Amino acid sequence: MAQQRRVQLCTQRPTSTVCVLGTELSLDIQGSAPKDAIAFHVQGTPGVKVYVVHETQSVKLPSSVTRWPLATGTEVLLTMEAISKDVGDEKVRISYFGEASGVPVGRAMLYLTCVDISLDADTGRNGSVSKTLVDKATWTWGPDGHGAILLVNCDCDDPKSRLMGDSSEPQSQLTDNRDTVVCSYEDLKDMSQMVLRTRGPRTIFTGHGLVLHVNFSDADKVGVFYGGNSIALEEYKHVLGGEKLAYAVKPSQHQEESIFYVEGLAFPDVSFSGLVAFHVTLLESPEKGLLETPIFTDTVVFRMAPWIMTPNTLAPLEVFVCSVKDNEDFVAAVSALAEEAKCPVTICPLPENRNDRWIQVGDVGLGTPSGCGSTALLFPLLPLQDEVEFGYVQAPHKMFPVVLDSPRDRGLKDFPVRSILGPDFGYVAQETPENTSSLDSFGNLEVSPPVTVRSKEYPLGRILIGSSFPRFGGRRMAKAVRNFLAAQRVQAPVELFSDWLQVGHVDEFLSFIPAPDRKGFRLLLASPSACYQLLREKQEMGYGEATMFQGLHGVPKPSISEILGNEALRKFNAYAQSCISWNRDILKRELGLAEQDIIDIPQLFQADHQARAVAYFPDMVNMLVLGRHLGIPKPFGPLVDGQCCLEERVRALLQPLGLSCTFINDYFSYHKLAGEVHCGTNVRRKPFAFKWWRMVP
Amino acid sequence: MAQQRRVQLCTQRPTSTVCVLGTELSLDIQGSAPKDAIAFHVQGTPGVKVYVVHETQSVKLPSSVTRWPLATGTEVLLTMEAISKDVGDEKVRISYFGEASGVPVGRAMLYLTCVDISLDADTGRNGSVSKTLVDKATWTWGPDGHGAILLVNCDCDDPKSRLMGDSSEPQSQLTDNRDTVVCSYEDLKDMSQMVLRTRGPRTIFTGHGLVLHVNFSDADKVGVFYGGNSIALEEYKHVLGGEKLAYAVKPSQHQEESIFYVEGLAFPDVSFSGLVAFHVTLLESPEKGLLETPIFTDTVVFRMAPWIMTPNTLAPLEVFVCSVKDNEDFVAAVSALAEEAKCPVTICPLPENRNDRWIQVGDVGLGTPSGCGSTALLFPLLPLQDEVEFGYVQAPHKMFPVVLDSPRDRGLKDFPVRSILGPDFGYVAQETPENTSSLDSFGNLEVSPPVTVRSKEYPLGRILIGSSFPRFGGRRMAKAVRNFLAAQRVQAPVELFSDWLQVGHVDEFLSFIPAPDRKGFRLLLASPSACYQLLREKQEMGYGEATMFQGLHGVPKPSISEILGNEALRKFNAYAQSCISWNRDILKRELGLAEQDIIDIPQLFQADHQARAVAYFPDMVNMLVLGRHLGIPKPFGPLVDGQCCLEERVRALLQPLGLSCTFINDYFSYHKLAGEVHCGTNVRRKPFAFKWWRMVP
Repeated sequence: MAQQRRVQLCTQRPTSTVCVLGTELSLDIQGSAPKDAIAFHVQGTPGVKVYVVHETQSVKLPSSVTRWPLATGTEVLLTMEAISKDVGDEKVRISYFGEASGVPVGRAMLYLTCVDISLDADTGRNGSVSKTLVDKATWTWGPDGHGAILLVNCDCDDPKSRLMGDSSEPQSQLTDNRDTVVCSYEDLKDMSQMVLRTRGPRTIFTGHGLVLHVNFSDADKVGVFYGGNSIALEEYKHVLGGEKLAYAVKPSQHQEESIFYVEGLAFPDVSFSGLVAFHVTLLESPEKGLLETPIFTDTVVFRMAPWIMTPNTLAPLEVFVCSVKDNEDFVAAVSALAEEAKCPVTICPLPENRNDRWIQVGDVGLGTPSGCGSTALLFPLLPLQDEVEFGYVQAPHKMFPVVLDSPRDRGLKDFPVRSILGPDFGYVAQETPENTSSLDSFGNLEVSPPVTVRSKEYPLGRILIGSSFPRFGGRRMAKAVRNFLAAQRVQAPVELFSDWLQVGHVDEFLSFIPAPDRKGFRLLLASPSACYQLLREKQEMGYGEATMFQGLHGVPKPSISEILGNEALRKFNAYAQSCISWNRDILKRELGLAEQDIIDIPQLFQADHQARAVAYFPDMVNMLVLGRHLGIPKPFGPLVDGQCCLEERVRALLQPLGLSCTFINDYFSYHKLAGEVHCGTNVRRKPFAFKWWRMVP
Repeated sequence: MAQQRRVQLCTQRPTSTVCVLGTELSLDIQGSAPKDAIAFHVQGTPGVKVYVVHETQSVKLPSSVTRWPLATGTEVLLTMEAISKDVGDEKVRISYFGEASGVPVGRAMLYLTCVDISLDADTGRNGSVSKTLVDKATWTWGPDGHGAILLVNCDCDDPKSRLMGDSSEPQSQLTDNRDTVVCSYEDLKDMSQMVLRTRGPRTIFTGHGLVLHVNFSDADKVGVFYGGNSIALEEYKHVLGGEKLAYAVKPSQHQEESIFYVEGLAFPDVSFSGLVAFHVTLLESPEKGLLETPIFTDTVVFRMAPWIMTPNTLAPLEVFVCSVKDNEDFVAAVSALAEEAKCPVTICPLPENRNDRWIQVGDVGLGTPSGCGSTALLFPLLPLQDEVEFGYVQAPHKMFPVVLDSPRDRGLKDFPVRSILGPDFGYVAQETPENTSSLDSFGNLEVSPPVTVRSKEYPLGRILIGSSFPRFGGRRMAKAVRNFLAAQRVQAPVELFSDWLQVGHVDEFLSFIPAPDRKGFRLLLASPSACYQLLREKQEMGYGEATMFQGLHGVPKPSISEILGNEALRKFNAYAQSCISWNRDILKRELGLAEQDIIDIPQLFQADHQARAVAYFPDMVNMLVLGRHLGIPKPFGPLVDGQCCLEERVRALLQPLGLSCTFINDYFSYHKLAGEVHCGTNVRRKPFAFKWWRMVP
């Protein structure tokens, strides 16, 4: 439906107004009619299309009817299809007639100027701005959806701010969305273009106000920059956003397009849907001293691109591992695995000042183990997996990785981020006013590969977060983080039950690996029951005396028979199994999995002093997945014919899927600190080929 | 899809478990298989339905196949259809076979107890709780929708709190949702029932934990009360909500139903969708000292009933008017009109201590006129319309009016509410941290009658709020109030442009009246252009010397010719007209109105010292609508043949619709204080016959 505007007429003096291309003018015929008028005649110059709506019939003029009764409900509508060359170059005349049909009893003249005003963005999602017929004021999901996209400009394109930032300044202050300057052309490229087109006699635009504005509630979510005719970086000014709700545009004499650059400042969240509307309004100033009246508004809506997580099934691009004292072998093993997978490794060195701070922050966590590698508070272990999660943002014109910083903010506070943050590498922190718990660590935040659940598609997978039942005292991921994840909408989170574990992370009992068949992946679940079955089998085969933990200095070495005879251990593992089974049921339901999509990985747990579970031997599902190369915590299982029977079983389960299993010794460096390989590493992965806006959440 | 649970088996010892009616058990056949087993046989007692899923075919047993290969992907599923009489009265036996087909190589026994656990509410929306087959964990809109409804328990059923509350205590502290006690049986009736049904051998429920719980994020939105077997009021305890996230239910020996009473505490808002989920979870406690494991959860979802406004077209139930000094005539006129409309009047008297406080609070607002009746800061005028808005809440079991208190909180702070609040009369305050402006007054909050806009139905109408363009300095209704109104979802708000008016309220230029034809109503718009037309007509008829404001002492008395000759006034009214026309365009578009649905009411405005508009003579659209009886501000227009020509024109426009026009003199008592009849009164109306949950927002 075309935008329609009511225009008052007057028989005393001519009226002048603007008609915006694509809109209708509705003339107030009755309002200007002389007292005795009972009929009217309307006539326009060729550039004006005139319609008379009479008894709900719309008749285009000229028609055979020349005089129309001046009845309530009779309307005159005008449209124009060509932009005026001069102000007032088209006109419409209304002649009023009384009972005596001869001479008009009054005349109203309307001088018209047709202009084109249009606020456009990349609503077609093809990386370029073009004028469109779609409804720019709405934003729709799906393959046939339309609507423009904004990126949160959370990378750092300013070389100065990267170099100058000292470690006392939080890295979130260094990102481009914190400033109101354009620091480089790279910075501009992260922004979305918004083009204001103004065509028509230029004097119209000097005589009328033209205002670009943003809704009050959206203003703190965006920044708009404008450089006028210039392409010089220093000419780009911050014109809208924050406190600036409106910007008076002055279209220049010779330019019909004004290009604005829009950056996002905030991700969708519980109180922000992600949609931001921009408007351009043409204002008429009837008289000096009076306020201006709006006569036309065009609106374009953007959606902020969500933060998207990348599952294990996506190709690895970069592996991160921390180098600390005593983990050289681990770093070497991870590097070797990465080399096999042809994936570069970034080894984060430990800065000189690290240990001090580490221990200091550690004081807070005493008593409650609160993270994968939590006892690392007392050791120089960097729990890379827990502190940050790699993801990305995408718009048709640009895509870059974004690291989400957990609210833990312990030792790694500004370490990896400072070295990562840069051009086209973004950063977002979740600050939360609540007390954080171990469940806020991002070991507790995983994402499944793409799934279809009862015909509902999740082409970017579903986020998995661990939680507790209220009954159990209630460690949960901070509400702020859960709200943030849910608000991204494209990877609808599933809550699992992880509070039965001491550390309480979902990566302690599940992992996803690529597979050539079925859904393209398998879910691996830690399985005490599968472990008992394996050990019983080996016992029956006569290997009851084979012992675990061979080659580990100072570690007790229980035999298969001792383990099977430990009644307390058996009961605790029955309990651990029932907790994992509960999650298995949820995962099958919420990810649409069948039993054949799940592989049980033998694993035992033992109780801590609070009867919470910790891995009895290195937790094999807590693995590093680099394409078909798996870095699995070396379990140090009982040696049967010189072979670790646990490794042998895992190989037997995974190699048929074309996967290569490398068992990495993390016993002292990670396992004994309540973490494993997955906790001690992190991977930046290739984004999905599937574009998020093509899904329907 | 039935809830499914994985059950581990064991060949060493029998396993016992519970099967909840309507769920499936999935047996871990592989997990308990002896080393050499290659096939199995499964057999159950008659109360157990056994299925073998083999190569994706589900085969119900007994079948012709007796032994099944122990292949990956082969599943055994169990269901039970009758509740057990005794613990473990049904069983399933798995026999494992090796290569040699004769004697089983192992056996696993599973003892089963079938129980029924169900958490139910009035999901069918018929006012009673019954067990249902619909998906209780979802809530859907529309005529075929399902899902239970909660009321915000914002009335006051406690006679003590009503009597004892002194005026120093805000009335919001007096409502039932602020306490955690059941103060009367009336209080219980405002709550929604939630029934926990537990059938099966009672020892199961003593041996297993049964926990009623609520999501952490929902807990501050609800309160749950439970009285056990008792019906004595003092036995009802607050068991869930706020800090209480879980309640351990102990089903009694003889009772299969536990009835919980749920009250809502908060209306939907920007960070609260209105949906609240309750869960009951059955916990298995494998061993003393170990944590319990969840084995079954049932969920029921409620939606908080929205606050609904009532348009002028709904029948009036009660008219409110304040009695202050010097407005006796006004009160008498309103009372007479109400009597004609057969509607009771409540006259709110001015308490002795009122004037003092009024003036004190008034100091804040000096300089910026900030409300319909804003200059009443200096006068004892009570702007009833601005301070509160009457609406209602509805659930299938209960409905009551709820007054929304504006964030203005000026003179009327705790006046009408204290006298209104009581059993089945609710109260909700919008507190806002921002500075409030005149646009926060509820004269600026209206609602249209039901409309259909391009086939989208709004069966409860749409809310209209006045706003500004950012260009104009930005008086707006507080974000908190706009968010609240939008979050109710059932009357999607439309923002109009009202900031061109000094007071800035939509009720200064629009009103809705009932009509027998078309959409059942007309939109009245104040029209300077219609007024000029009328005055010119009268001038042409020779009445140019007729003067306005006859009979008003001390008021200048301009003639028609003087008004028409006042060029500044003409220009300002052209401006006012263009502002109203802009709103007319929006209203036509957003309410789906045609020109024939709109009536132009002659009205003139004049500029204040900031060039903002105030009514030049009493603002006729600011009327009181009581059915077909209209109380219209008396315009004191020019007398033509002894008749006010403005009144005459309005009668001519409205009487054909069957409406009766009474012109009420509010010149000195309201008009001169920048308010009119509508501002000085308020009406509680009959709720819609249409139930809100039957719409699709």
